[in-house]
Order: sequence, then C-alpha cells, then structure tokens
Amino acid sequence: MIKVGIIGSTGYAGQELVRLLLGHKEAEIVWYGSRSYIDKKYYEVFGNMFEIVDAACLDDNMEELARKADVIFTATPQGLCASLVNEEILSNVKIVDLSADFRIKDVATYEKWYGIEHKSPSFIEEAVYGLCEINREQIKGKRLVANPGCYTTCSILSLYPLVKEGIIDPNSIIIDAKSGTSGAGRGAKINNLFCEVNESIKAYGVTSHRHTPEIEEQLGYACGKQIMLNFTPHLVPMNRGILVTAYGNLNGKYTYEEIKAVYDKYYANEKFVRVLEKDVCPETRWVEGSNYVDVNFKIDERTGRVVVMGALDNLVKGAAGQAVQNMNLIFGLQEDMGLQQAPMFP
Amino acid sequence: MIKVGIIGSTGYAGQELVRLLLGHKEAEIVWYGSRSYIDKKYYEVFGNMFEIVDAACLDDNMEELARKADVIFTATPQGLCASLVNEEILSNVKIVDLSADFRIKDVATYEKWYGIEHKSPSFIEEAVYGLCEINREQIKGKRLVANPGCYTTCSILSLYPLVKEGIIDPNSIIIDAKSGTSGAGRGAKINNLFCEVNESIKAYGVTSHRHTPEIEEQLGYACGKQIMLNFTPHLVPMNRGILVTAYGNLNGKYTYEEIKAVYDKYYANEKFVRVLEKDVCPETRWVEGSNYVDVNFKIDERTGRVVVMGALDNLVKGAAGQAVQNMNLIFGLQEDMGLQQAPMFP
Amino acid sequence: MIKVGIIGSTGYAGQELVRLLLGHKEAEIVWYGSRSYIDKKYYEVFGNMFEIVDAACLDDNMEELARKADVIFTATPQGLCASLVNEEILSNVKIVDLSADFRIKDVATYEKWYGIEHKSPSFIEEAVYGLCEINREQIKGKRLVANPGCYTTCSILSLYPLVKEGIIDPNSIIIDAKSGTSGAGRGAKINNLFCEVNESIKAYGVTSHRHTPEIEEQLGYACGKQIMLNFTPHLVPMNRGILVTAYGNLNGKYTYEEIKAVYDKYYANEKFVRVLEKDVCPETRWVEGSNYVDVNFKIDERTGRVVVMGALDNLVKGAAGQAVQNMNLIFGLQEDMGLQQAPMFP
Amino acid sequence: MIKVGIIGSTGYAGQELVRLLLGHKEAEIVWYGSRSYIDKKYYEVFGNMFEIVDAACLDDNMEELARKADVIFTATPQGLCASLVNEEILSNVKIVDLSADFRIKDVATYEKWYGIEHKSPSFIEEAVYGLCEINREQIKGKRLVANPGCYTTCSILSLYPLVKEGIIDPNSIIIDAKSGTSGAGRGAKINNLFCEVNESIKAYGVTSHRHTPEIEEQLGYACGKQIMLNFTPHLVPMNRGILVTAYGNLNGKYTYEEIKAVYDKYYANEKFVRVLEKDVCPETRWVEGSNYVDVNFKIDERTGRVVVMGALDNLVKGAAGQAVQNMNLIFGLQEDMGLQQAPMFP
Repeated sequence: MIKVGIIGSTGYAGQELVRLLLGHKEAEIVWYGSRSYIDKKYYEVFGNMFEIVDAACLDDNMEELARKADVIFTATPQGLCASLVNEEILSNVKIVDLSADFRIKDVATYEKWYGIEHKSPSFIEEAVYGLCEINREQIKGKRLVANPGCYTTCSILSLYPLVKEGIIDPNSIIIDAKSGTSGAGRGAKINNLFCEVNESIKAYGVTSHRHTPEIEEQLGYACGKQIMLNFTPHLVPMNRGILVTAYGNLNGKYTYEEIKAVYDKYYANEKFVRVLEKDVCPETRWVEGSNYVDVNFKIDERTGRVVVMGALDNLVKGAAGQAVQNMNLIFGLQEDMGLQQAPMFP
Repeated sequence: MIKVGIIGSTGYAGQELVRLLLGHKEAEIVWYGSRSYIDKKYYEVFGNMFEIVDAACLDDNMEELARKADVIFTATPQGLCASLVNEEILSNVKIVDLSADFRIKDVATYEKWYGIEHKSPSFIEEAVYGLCEINREQIKGKRLVANPGCYTTCSILSLYPLVKEGIIDPNSIIIDAKSGTSGAGRGAKINNLFCEVNESIKAYGVTSHRHTPEIEEQLGYACGKQIMLNFTPHLVPMNRGILVTAYGNLNGKYTYEEIKAVYDKYYANEKFVRVLEKDVCPETRWVEGSNYVDVNFKIDERTGRVVVMGALDNLVKGAAGQAVQNMNLIFGLQEDMGLQQAPMFP
Repeated sequence: MIKVGIIGSTGYAGQELVRLLLGHKEAEIVWYGSRSYIDKKYYEVFGNMFEIVDAACLDDNMEELARKADVIFTATPQGLCASLVNEEILSNVKIVDLSADFRIKDVATYEKWYGIEHKSPSFIEEAVYGLCEINREQIKGKRLVANPGCYTTCSILSLYPLVKEGIIDPNSIIIDAKSGTSGAGRGAKINNLFCEVNESIKAYGVTSHRHTPEIEEQLGYACGKQIMLNFTPHLVPMNRGILVTAYGNLNGKYTYEEIKAVYDKYYANEKFVRVLEKDVCPETRWVEGSNYVDVNFKIDERTGRVVVMGALDNLVKGAAGQAVQNMNLIFGLQEDMGLQQAPMFP
Repeated sequence: MIKVGIIGSTGYAGQELVRLLLGHKEAEIVWYGSRSYIDKKYYEVFGNMFEIVDAACLDDNMEELARKADVIFTATPQGLCASLVNEEILSNVKIVDLSADFRIKDVATYEKWYGIEHKSPSFIEEAVYGLCEINREQIKGKRLVANPGCYTTCSILSLYPLVKEGIIDPNSIIIDAKSGTSGAGRGAKINNLFCEVNESIKAYGVTSHRHTPEIEEQLGYACGKQIMLNFTPHLVPMNRGILVTAYGNLNGKYTYEEIKAVYDKYYANEKFVRVLEKDVCPETRWVEGSNYVDVNFKIDERTGRVVVMGALDNLVKGAAGQAVQNMNLIFGLQEDMGLQQAPMFP
C-alpha cells in the first residue's frame, strides 16, 4: 500500500486527488495537508467526503510528512514546492508537484513568466516533465515529477503528433483555449463569484499566460527547435473541462487519412488519448470526471491550415488524474489504476 | 459474472446504468436496448463511451433477451415493462423495473394517476418495492423489483423515521422538491432546451405529479394507515440532483437529540444514507455522481413543525444506482458493489 | 429632474438602481456612493456602464448628500441606514431604504432576528412599508420608506388576497422560496463562488431567516392578528429570480373561480402583478429584468390546501425596481416611470 | 408611427425584436407572424409578454402584410425571405431581412455555402449590407437591408479598422468565436437540451460555417481584395452573448497607441462600439441585453501578432438590435431610438 500525503488538499485539484485516490486499490492517503483549514475535519471543507474521510487537515510539516508518506502530491501555489524540497526529503519520498515549479527547464524563463525567484534550481534538471504519454519511460522510478498544467496537457497532446512529424509550422501555431471555472481555484475572489462567471465568457492573460512557455518548451522538444506561439485562455461558465482549439499552417497538402495516420502512430495504443472519428468534434461533456483526452482535427484546404481540437477534464487529466497516472508510473503499478471510471454524463 | 440487459439504454437513466455497471466487477452488459437508435453504435449516442463500449444498440426482443441475460433493467416509459413481462420471462430472468409499472399496489390508483391501463396486474402482488434501506430483506432473491422513483426515494428516506415512529402527523406533510433537468429525460422538447431551463425555476405537476401516490403508499405502510400529503416538484437549472424540503407538524415537543436518535435508529448503519451533523443542510453538490442520500432536519419550536431535508443524485440513488443496489441484493452480492465511488465535486 | 443619491451603489441592488434610473426620464443620479471603491470610476466596477456612467464612486457623506440629492437610496447592509438618519437629514431629503432597518415596527423583533441594536428607533413609526400595491396611498409624499425584502415582496403579494379575505388559515402557511444567487450579494465568499453554487441547490437559514418576521408582520396586518409561519429560502444556480411556492389550509371548499375572483379583486388593476391564466405556473424566466410579479394558485381538493406560487426578479421588484416605484409614488410621478420595459428572455 | 410586421416572431431573434420594439416610441407592431403557432396568443408562446402583448400569431401572408406594414422584419430560416420578395412587395414596404438571403453578393457563393438555390437573385444587387457603423449612409432610405449575422457583426467590427488600414495581413486572420445557446435557435433538438449544453463546450461547423464567406466578403471590401480566413464557432453554456477572439499577423511594428488610434479613428464617435481601455478584455456579461459591441486588442510583440477581441449580445447587436438600428436609419429616425437601455447585469 502506497502511503500518500497531499499538500494543498483543500483546493479543487487537491480534493480531486482525494476522490481519485479513495478509489485506488494500492494507495492510501495518510496526510491531508491544508494551511487554511488546520485541524478542521476534511469533510467540513468538502461535504461530499462526510462519512468517507474522517481525517482532519494538517499543517505543512515536510520532514514529518517525508517520513510518513511514500509519495507527496503538492497541489499548491507556485513557489511552495520549490521552497520545500531538498536532498534529504527527496531521498525519503517521491514528489509529484502539481505546481509549475519544476516544469520549465530554464530558470530565467520560469522567473520571468512567474515573477518569483526559484528556490531550488538545482533540482530542475532532475525533475521529469510528467506528461505520461510522451515521457512515460523517463517517469518510471523517478523521485521528482513535474505534473503538467491543465491547458498545457490539452494543448500539447492535441498538437504533438503534427509538430513531431513536421506536418505543421510550429511558429504558426495559435492555441485558443477555454476552461471551466474550477481552473481558477477556490479562492474567494469577486471575479469568480457565481453571478460574475455565469452567463459570460471572457479571455484573460492574453499574450501573457504562464502556460505559454511550458507549451513552447515541450513542443519545441518535439520539433527540435525553439518555437513561439500564441496561447489565449478563456473562462467558461461551467465547473470542469478544457477545450483547446488550435490552428497551424500545414507544411504541404495532406489528406485526412495521412494526418489520421500520424495521430494513430502516437495514440492508437494510448488508453487515455482518444482520437475521435472523422468530423466528430471533441466536447468537454464527454470526458468529465475521467482521465481521457479526446482529440481530433479538421483540414481546411481553402486556407492551408489544420484546426486541431482537444478536450479533457482540467481536474483529472489536467491535474489530479495525471498526477495519479504519474504515481502509478513511478511505482511500477498498472498505469490506469484508480483511473478506470468512464466519464460521467450529464 | 451476471449478464445484464438494459431496455432503454439511451435515456439518461439507462446511460447511467451503463456507467455504473462498467465499474461493477460482477456484472457485464450484454444488451444495449434502444428503440430509437437501433444498430447505432452506443458511443455515437453517448460520446463518453467512445473506446469503452463498442456494442451497437438493439431493438427490444424480450424472448431473446431473457435467454441471454440474468437480469434486465427496464429504463423505459411507463407501461412498457408491464406489457413485456410474463411468467415465462420471469422464470428465466430477474427484472428491475425503473418505470412506475410495479411500484403501486393498487391498480386503480396506478391507472388513475398514470392515465394508462395496466397490462400485467397479476404480477403487481409479487413485485417488491425496491427501496433498499426499507425493504432489504424482501428484495433478496426476488425476480421482479420495482425500482422507486427519484423524488420518491428522496422524499421517503427523508421522512421515514419520523413517520414510522409517529413523530409527525403524516397528513400534515408537505413535500417541496427540486430536481435537476436530467429528470426530465432526453426527449427533444422545447421546454427542456438550454435557453428555456437555464436562468429559471418553476413548479410543475402541482397537486397532480405521479410520484404523489407512490410516496403516500409507502409512508402509509410506515404509519399503518392511508395518508394524503402535498408534493410539488420544481425544475432547477442544473443537470443532476434532487433536493427535498419537507414540512410536518410535530406530534409533541421534541429535542434535537430525540429526533436525531430516531434518524440514527434507522440509518446509523446504512452506508448510503448520511444523517448530517446538526445544522448542516443537505446540498445536491455533495452527492453528485454517488449513491448517497444526505438527510437532516430542523425543529421549528415557534410553529411546532419540523423541516426535513434530503439530497440525492436523481440518476444514481434516484434511478440507476438504486437499481444496481437492488441487483446486488437480488443476487446476494455485496450491497455496495459498483457503487463505492465518492461523490464528484465540483 | 429628481436628483438621486445611492449609498451602496456597487452591490448588485445598487447597480440595478443605476441601470433602472438611467432609463428614468425624471431622475438623475448625482451620487454613486461606495465605501469599497472610493474614487474608482463606476465603470471600472461594472463594465456594462463604460461610456454610460463617467462618475467615480464617493464615500458616504450624509450631510453633503442630503444637500445635493432629493432622494437617497440606501442599498447597504442592515444597520447603516438607521445609523445615518436624523431629523435634519429627513427634513432635507427623502430616503428609500433597501435594507431592513425600518421594515419591522417592533424594535425587539428587529433586534432579535438581526442581532444588532437599532440606532434610530424613533423613526420606525414614521417609516412606511413600501410594498406599493398594498400601501400605495401611505407612501405618497412620505420622507422615509422601508423598501421590502425580495423574498418578502414575493411571499406577501402571492398570499395577500387569501389572507386578507380569510380564505386560508394564516398559521398553516408554509413558504418554500427559491432565489437566484444575486440575492446573496457581491461579497467575496467561497460559498458563492461559481463552482460552489453551480450544479447545486440547498436550503439555508432554515427556521431562522430574517425575512420571516417581516412576512409575518405584514400578513398579520392583512388578517388582523399575529401569525406564525414557516419560511425556508433556497439558493438556486441562476443569477436572478425568486420563486415562492406556498401552502395553506383552506378554510372551506372553494372553486377555482371563487379564488380567482379574490385575486382579481386585489390585482386586476395592478400593472405589476400578473395573475396568470388557469394552470399556468409562474416561472422566473418570464419576469427577468422587469418589475412584474407573476402569481397563480392551485387548489388541492384531496388535502384541502391551496398551493400558491409567485415569481419576480429579486433585483427589480424585489429591490431596485420597487425602490424606483416607491420614489415615483413619493414624488407623485407616474408609478411605472422607468419601469416599463418588458421582461427580457432568454 | 411606423407599422412593423415580423415574420418569424416566435424564434429567439423574433421575440427580441418584439421586446425592443415595445420600447420604441416611433414603432408599433401590427403583425406577429409565426407559421408554427398560428392563432395562438403570442403570450402563450412567450410568457414574458403576458398582459403586454395581446395579439395572436398570424400565418405568413406577404401581400396583406405589405399593405398593413411600413417595414417587415424577416427573422426566418434561410431562403424564406428570398422566396417572398418581389417588385410589388418592395414598392410597398421596407424589408430588413435577418436571414442570410441578401448578405452575400455572389449568388454562387451563397448557394455553395448554404446548399439552397437563391429564389430572388435579381434583388441581391439592390440590397445593402446592414452593418450600420460601416454602411450607414447607404442604408438610409433603402428598401431592402440584409441584416448581418451575429458572428459576422462581432467579427467584422472587431477587425475592421486593422484590415481597412492595412495593419494586419487579412489572409492571416483566424477567428475563434464563442456563442451563447440562443444562437442555436428554438428548435426542439436533443443537442440543444439543457443537459447536453450545460457543463460543456464544443466547436462546430469547423472550416465550414456559413458566416465564413460573409466575413470574408466584407473584410475583403475593407482591404480591397479577396481574402480567405479561418472561422471557428463554439457553443457555450450561456443564454446570450458572442465573444470573438481573433488573431492576425501584424504588417510591421506598432505601439499600443498607434493601434488604439486606428480604432478610435473608426469608433470614437460610434455610440454602439466601445473601444475598451488598455488591457481590459471584453466580456459578454457587460453587453447583455444591449446593442453595444465591446472591442479591444493586445499586441504580442513576441510573435508579431495582434489578438483582437469583441463581445456583443447575439440577439441584440447580433440580430434584433441591429435590425432596429437599420430600421431607424431607413426611416431617418435617431439611430439609437429604442436601443438606449444600458446592459443588464448580472
């Protein structure tokens, strides 16, 4: 039984980790970390856990946690994980960091986009980027995994085969992404009140969202060069779900079958990436509550572009689900353990 | 492995049965019945099932189905199940009927409220009312179970201890119920369009909703006499969930502790009924996707009434989940098999 | 041109006052009061007002405001208006108070239910309860009007004819009310975040909501005696709208026509109260953005009760619209001035 | 008083025309056309109009209508208006066509994208494209105005200054648009049911949506050459609102001030186009119920692109509001008559 500690268990991603791990037959949560709700029963924060989780929330105590747990998930704001890790901790416990601290290899890029100093640059090199379908082999056995961002996972998995195979010009890529509101976190902010979000849609972080360099770095690895692209996130009045609509200039003329073959090459054997049938557009309703990413594409012969679409649940494949998938890989478990439930609809 | 056939698998309740049974380790779906989508792949109707269910939808063929399946779920409009059952069928297969055909013992009452003739009155006596927490022992081994209605389950479980123990006057009961829109079914009706339901709330079926006699009959059994009450359903702009707020005149002065003890007497050992802590009101968000019913009460000393509240997911405990619970009881399986997932939030 | 000052103009009700008054041809806003946004442009708080309102928000300065304005609307938390009024102020300016400070005639009742000391009990007697359809004549020319609560307006107008004419037993009344989330205000609270409210419904303030004594007092005036009733509010995932479903024991046998005649007696000439046609249930979608209250009833011959329903927009007839209606009455303007727009759908 | 006839008055756009015209002091509706609800009271179809509109719905009788009305709005499916107009009709009455029949000058393009034969190609030349801010002078006095599409209005107004002034390469334009569900019409389709739309977002009509050639044609006029672009619409779980996020390659280096000046050149004096302040992103919540279009832009120096955003209410500026604006222009009325209400929030 793998003993799990969660730092930041009272955010939306933290709570989703709890939900998923309760259904994982080889994992057991031993630490519900939450600075905001210390000593409060976890079910008082999340009523769905009444009579299911009896534990109370604990303050962050990294040393004690490293002794008690086999793996720690940090579902915390940027900077916290980097401030907590050190060699002794990492020699005792595996860490799956759901924040951005170890996602970007270049410290300067991290510090520029996030506006904070990195506290543990020496561990960046060691950390593996936990996009399971791409870096599966490197994740196995690792002690520090940087769990990818929600927008990032959806964007990269949607575009990866086309970039990797040189089908599109990576510098022509435009990613227009739409997210449910749980992506904005559980902080008490006026802009996230029901009446402010409901019946509205808006872009935010235009040209400056922090997932941009993360996407550029990973897609850059895929094509072997530095790239720059546009990424625009939007807030949608729904709880869960991310839809990515991406545009790229085709490097030549391609048939549907040719591009479909490229997607199949990478994803035909991937359980969690579903390449939809021709002309079927991904919809977030079909992945809710599950670890699936639905992707598809449409060639526009008129303009010489391809429109790529991807949909996932931002709290599952975009956060907690992929973190569990990473845990499974680290510990050599069946990769989909605890992640086998079908999407819930409606 | 129990072989399951579903008639009406392309409605919301039918699809929820599929979702739950896919996670049930002792059950296997062998028949996806759907008159509306014959020969269509199930995943073309419900995209969440892509790469999960490969079967196509089948027409209703009760004889063949009775041979192939160990249990049939009928998630169909009223009247269909009654028109399909006969002695030969029931000698071959168990039936859990999610429609109202076998819920009401008095044929005249059924025919009056539903406005249709009952086609199999001879089986009404045999059928057991599948409210698991109340009729557990009678359900075991039965071949015909009438799965309770969604509003009914929530209403009865919320009020049962008070009626059974004579705490309230059953004829004073007023049930004001609120349901998510999946309860209205998947038919293409203008009144159920997004723009008609969203940003609105309304009552419907006032004084005439068909769940009224079902509630009256069952609560009548609890207190040993015929009763009459008011039941008013409302349509709420959300997908899932039923909240019941019920009012009853107290038969005397009671403390919180006394009434709490009455609830505990019936529910302390019931996994799926959670009696909340003092002053915590049930909310549908805390039960979504799960088989739980959350109940609580508040004494109003000023008026001498008690306000009782209950919340459940209309598609799970209110339909498919309870149907699976009934199947488990019929076949002697662990009662919560396939129903162990925690509620999903948000 | 009536000069209007608004204290609390950056709450939802305050902003709705602005929206309505911008379309009022005899009123002009001269003071956008807001303690939270002093010196901030009003359109920076509410983007809908960009290029429409150029004014900045001002601190509360009652003396200055009383000199500059002909009427002040206080759309503020309980206690503020009572702490600001005095004889000098009231000799200079009319006040329409949208808080509860002057709604309840008995100071002890106010202090018990609101848990605060009343700062100006001497003005309670003078204040008129601004439920326009009931107290029209008393409002005209008054200098202090207590604008009724949102739930209260809907509850009283729905039940008034039946209580006034002795059709129902007032002590049997149960009011089950459902409100959109703008009723919860614009404060940054976790419980009002989009993901917490969306896809859920709950009761709150059960047996203890502050609108209870207000409803009891006013319906008590209608029947000439003190009464006690149950009032339960619920939070619904929509922006605007209140639906009241109320239950009362009939004092005898009545036909539809008899009760319809009672409603018509009071409302046939009331523009803003629409008694719907037989069997049509009020729905909040049909009154959104307007000052209408839709009411109807259904007799339950089985139980001897009547089910009464009412729907209004909590920000219009439940707050700002009725406040404007009161202003019109005070100043002798046409009662529906600025309130003539049809409801907006969808 | 202008006498108005509406063909298709029981769709969402038709009903919005009714709402707006009820507040228009120089217009009076004399004909509520609706093939689906002939002889039914209009308020039975739209309950918001109870006690406001007493008229019943009428069948389409173009001859009679042309005699009774001064202007006809056709809020109907494509093809109907083209099948109804002729010289005699147009000599008697003005027509504002809300369908696409007269928007596209090239018949072949129309027939290819819409898949139907054009029944009145001879009137296409005469028809003026009713995008008021661009074609104001040509609209005045015209007898046949093609009211632009909802996506089109938002897309063109957002991009027009940049294309007109040669700031961006028009063939690089990518328009990613998001619409509320009222844009999908009031037809009873499963895909538009509440539970199907709620909690989901999807793209549709990818590379093939009919508003594409309309946008291309109009922006082509702006830059003086034929262009091709990508347009992708999305369905968002909200009632009203369109948000356009568009991307274009800058033809050089521009400062914020330079591009702002370009927008101001075209829109500084336009009441209904609001160019927002720097870094403020348009949001549909701020335009709901009004005829405003909010636009803004953000330069991405890294990629050499500009991100342009526009928001409007699809039923107002995207349909009925612009139609009224066109009527005002045709008849020489004040352009904003009947369109002066502030946006409604929340």
